[in-house]
Amino acid sequence: MATTNPAGLVRPIAVIGGTGPAGMGLALRWARAGETVIIGSRNEERAQQTAAAIQRRAGPDAIVSGMENAAACAAADILMLTVPFEGQATLLKELKPAMTAGSILIDATVPLAASVGGRASRTLGVWQGSAAQQAAELVPKEVSVVAAFHNVSADMLNGDAPLDCDVIVCSNDADASQLTRELAAKIPGVRALDGGPLQNARIVEQITALLIGMNIRYKGHAGVRITGLPPTAYR
Amino acid sequence: MATTNPAGLVRPIAVIGGTGPAGMGLALRWARAGETVIIGSRNEERAQQTAAAIQRRAGPDAIVSGMENAAACAAADILMLTVPFEGQATLLKELKPAMTAGSILIDATVPLAASVGGRASRTLGVWQGSAAQQAAELVPKEVSVVAAFHNVSADMLNGDAPLDCDVIVCSNDADASQLTRELAAKIPGVRALDGGPLQNARIVEQITALLIGMNIRYKGHAGVRITGLPPTAYR
Repeated sequence: MATTNPAGLVRPIAVIGGTGPAGMGLALRWARAGETVIIGSRNEERAQQTAAAIQRRAGPDAIVSGMENAAACAAADILMLTVPFEGQATLLKELKPAMTAGSILIDATVPLAASVGGRASRTLGVWQGSAAQQAAELVPKEVSVVAAFHNVSADMLNGDAPLDCDVIVCSNDADASQLTRELAAKIPGVRALDGGPLQNARIVEQITALLIGMNIRYKGHAGVRITGLPPTAYR
Repeated sequence: MATTNPAGLVRPIAVIGGTGPAGMGLALRWARAGETVIIGSRNEERAQQTAAAIQRRAGPDAIVSGMENAAACAAADILMLTVPFEGQATLLKELKPAMTAGSILIDATVPLAASVGGRASRTLGVWQGSAAQQAAELVPKEVSVVAAFHNVSADMLNGDAPLDCDVIVCSNDADASQLTRELAAKIPGVRALDGGPLQNARIVEQITALLIGMNIRYKGHAGVRITGLPPTAYR
């Protein structure tokens, strides 16, 4: 079942940076779940090639298209941002005019030190507190920012097996948080949890660096499950 | 089986701050696992009362005693520190002369903002990077610091059921890290993982604040499991 608005119209998801591994994986999983997905890329042709590849894997019923980033942004009001930290601010400034009021920006950016030539198992300090809070400063006031999907293995997303991880969702907008948790729960094996206000993204983003260290140490695809909460906590 | 040194002598574990909920819970679980446990407290009598209570719950074979903190420190070379952040530095300065060379200090301190009247779902910035790195600066050079047990629910530790969480262990001393992982794995239901160097404690400590927020939101006893790693990663 695709995500719809109160008028019953399908709400497409634009995956900005959708030709990278995390974006492709999310797009694949959502296309399989019946969502209408738009792959966004700097390069329209590359976006369309990636969309075609996802379409082939997701099957004939999937609805996947490819557009240049700004066009993808303008065509959707659910925006999933999966770009490296070093590109986040510049891209958001560029896309700001294309964002429509009432849109939701789901940010998965992790400020890895690798962005400035350091290690992927370390993070940079972001003035605002987190990459997601930086994003919130750069989008129009009428766009709600949600932080989520930092700790989902791109390799696992691009496979066919169910995942074995939880998605911790942080936002100051309760409705946007809930919609994001519903989207997360459409990925087989994923449970979604309310991680609190957007400022908590600073913790969730850093967990990624810890998991990357474990992946290097143990050669795995580490994820996180939160245990010990009542069943109603998990979506 | 108790932890022993190369000469086959039992190595007691001194739980400094052992009359608090986390310390009591760890002491109970280790006493049940056959470890020799010393409860340390500012107040010797209180230490002995807590030791007696743990002894009653752990059964006649358990070996639990209570001592004033400095005496507990001097009597053991495995020191488990479970005190609120606001007491950590002062206590470590006080105990420094009692620590013996070659000791291991396992630090579970979380720099919660609650330490200065703020929220338990937020952390303070620690100059050294983490409470564990602050600890490393305050103990004698010949004492190895390990960061672990931040994210284990004290309520669950004080119960009888197996736990459902992993313990992420950070240290610059590979042997001390391994010993700590072995101690963690003696708690039913706990798996231990190498979280990398001590500096990574800054991430593990912050996870606690996130879990506390979830406990408040959902009324639970949140813990963390790391998924997606090969079985050899878990002890």
